[in-house]
Amino acid sequence: MRAVIMHGPGDVRVEEVPTPEIIEPTDAIIKVDTTCVCGSDLWPYRGVSKLSRPTQMGHEYIGTVEQVGADVQGIKVGDYVVGSFMASDGTCEICAAGYQSRCAHVVGMGSVGTQAEYARIPWADGTLVKVEGDVTPSRRRGLLAASDVLGTGWFAAVAAEAGPGKTVAVVGDGAVGLLGILAASRLGAERIIAMSRHASRQALAQRFGATDIVEERGDAGIARIKEMTGGYGAHSTIEAVGTQEAMQQSIRSTRSGGHVGFVGVSHGVTIDGSALFGATVHLHGGPAPVRRFLPELIDLIMTDQIDPGAVFDLTLPFDEAGEGYRAMDERRAIKTMLEF
Amino acid sequence: MRAVIMHGPGDVRVEEVPTPEIIEPTDAIIKVDTTCVCGSDLWPYRGVSKLSRPTQMGHEYIGTVEQVGADVQGIKVGDYVVGSFMASDGTCEICAAGYQSRCAHVVGMGSVGTQAEYARIPWADGTLVKVEGDVTPSRRRGLLAASDVLGTGWFAAVAAEAGPGKTVAVVGDGAVGLLGILAASRLGAERIIAMSRHASRQALAQRFGATDIVEERGDAGIARIKEMTGGYGAHSTIEAVGTQEAMQQSIRSTRSGGHVGFVGVSHGVTIDGSALFGATVHLHGGPAPVRRFLPELIDLIMTDQIDPGAVFDLTLPFDEAGEGYRAMDERRAIKTMLEF
Repeated sequence: MRAVIMHGPGDVRVEEVPTPEIIEPTDAIIKVDTTCVCGSDLWPYRGVSKLSRPTQMGHEYIGTVEQVGADVQGIKVGDYVVGSFMASDGTCEICAAGYQSRCAHVVGMGSVGTQAEYARIPWADGTLVKVEGDVTPSRRRGLLAASDVLGTGWFAAVAAEAGPGKTVAVVGDGAVGLLGILAASRLGAERIIAMSRHASRQALAQRFGATDIVEERGDAGIARIKEMTGGYGAHSTIEAVGTQEAMQQSIRSTRSGGHVGFVGVSHGVTIDGSALFGATVHLHGGPAPVRRFLPELIDLIMTDQIDPGAVFDLTLPFDEAGEGYRAMDERRAIKTMLEF
Repeated sequence: MRAVIMHGPGDVRVEEVPTPEIIEPTDAIIKVDTTCVCGSDLWPYRGVSKLSRPTQMGHEYIGTVEQVGADVQGIKVGDYVVGSFMASDGTCEICAAGYQSRCAHVVGMGSVGTQAEYARIPWADGTLVKVEGDVTPSRRRGLLAASDVLGTGWFAAVAAEAGPGKTVAVVGDGAVGLLGILAASRLGAERIIAMSRHASRQALAQRFGATDIVEERGDAGIARIKEMTGGYGAHSTIEAVGTQEAMQQSIRSTRSGGHVGFVGVSHGVTIDGSALFGATVHLHGGPAPVRRFLPELIDLIMTDQIDPGAVFDLTLPFDEAGEGYRAMDERRAIKTMLEF
């Protein structure tokens, strides 16, 4: 089958690799319907994180079940399914508490590589959710977004305790930040401040529910948020970048007693204990337990209540994956969908 | 009047200073009934934090109102009162949200210095809570504890979301950690693990509700907590020290999705963003908004439902404050009360 292989920074190729097979009796094999490139795939693409060998990429997917292991009970061949970027057993105490991304037996789908024609899904019963109904093109894009970026933005908004009466600041205008805005809006936030200086992303932010745009960054951005909130800072801040600057900006933009939900994969971030003590905010984040939210998100998508698939502003044939990475790296595209 | 002045590390003296007067119309002057030495007073005593000049010490107090400013309405001369270590206006949005220690107009009582015969209390209406009823000796000790260490331990337990069905680990066996145990117990925690290797503190921990004692520290302590919790870690961890080791131990002892409440004043703590991302815990802490809890705590003390004053294992005449500091520094005493 064809798969996307990263050979090194900036070097992404579509190559022939062996088609995956059932390994564990809890596995399923899906024929990938569509997949996409994630902002986090850009860390190795840019050489910020290192790959020790050529690596099959991708962790987002929707598809049709081709084969199931002997112990799989809830998922059947032919089911159209969405899963999270983290496979989870669905039965441990961590899963039961809604933190499936930190399941005691978690398998990162990045280690599987779903930018491929077929993918092996560990813990199929705990990981996959069956979709029923008519999958229109926009719902299909939405379901693919649910696999990671929508679920991650949703978790960030929940972690930031976005809700009625709250002012929510969003640091990061990539797909996750934009979908964090959508989530905050659905969760009833009163005011949503998108921090962005890119016109096309600002427009999408507003379409998803942003009430205000702040173009300033760093100290100026923090000052602007304070000014807009009676000097107090936002009640809730979503950090969707993963850099030191974004984390600092998020913590310092939040009022004492407020909540920072951080989902940007941390790169070189260190948090000063004294500053955090002084800030007296709530800080919660990590790899989003997307599986917790999938049933609700699928329902919202399949009833056309949300259109998260709008983050895909570039769709390419699978064989042009390299251009999909380049366009995101150069910020010509927010997010690239790859079709077979 | 007499006051405790720290001249430098290890150098604490009782000296004559001017009696405070009303400065702002929102001030009150109290005659201090009793005061005490805080674990945080040991940071400058040990030279870990620096004093630029001789400093009047103390931020914990109970006493009787002697005088009120023109704008004070809720507090009257003669009232027997408890206040927090942070004076707060009680009216700003941060106070309204229960984060009085980060009030928009906060005044740290450490800048006032309550190890003294009299103290000026800024924002008397927002800060002080009147106590009614018969103040027995044990209730008096309890009320003094409420001024900081009880309120701080309580906040830590609330921040850690201690409650029914939860296993709570407590890092730090000083007064705050011990009272965090008491709080976790009152909040209904199922299992409370005190991390302590001092027999007298272990005994008090058990009296306050600890169900288990762990003597190991660092990696061994974390391994022991994991072993006791099915490999998952505690649901809730209270960090009541403020060092790098304690913070790391707290984060790493907590299961994903769990809560760390940190109240140890941070000294040299840095948190690695990647490790925190991976841990996927909730982290919340800072100077405790003791004022939020005071009415409830006073009620529990005055109805003898809790006996937090048991943390005072050394009571000295005010003039012997120096020995009170020494005893705590050498860990001969958990907490020293100073009586006039």
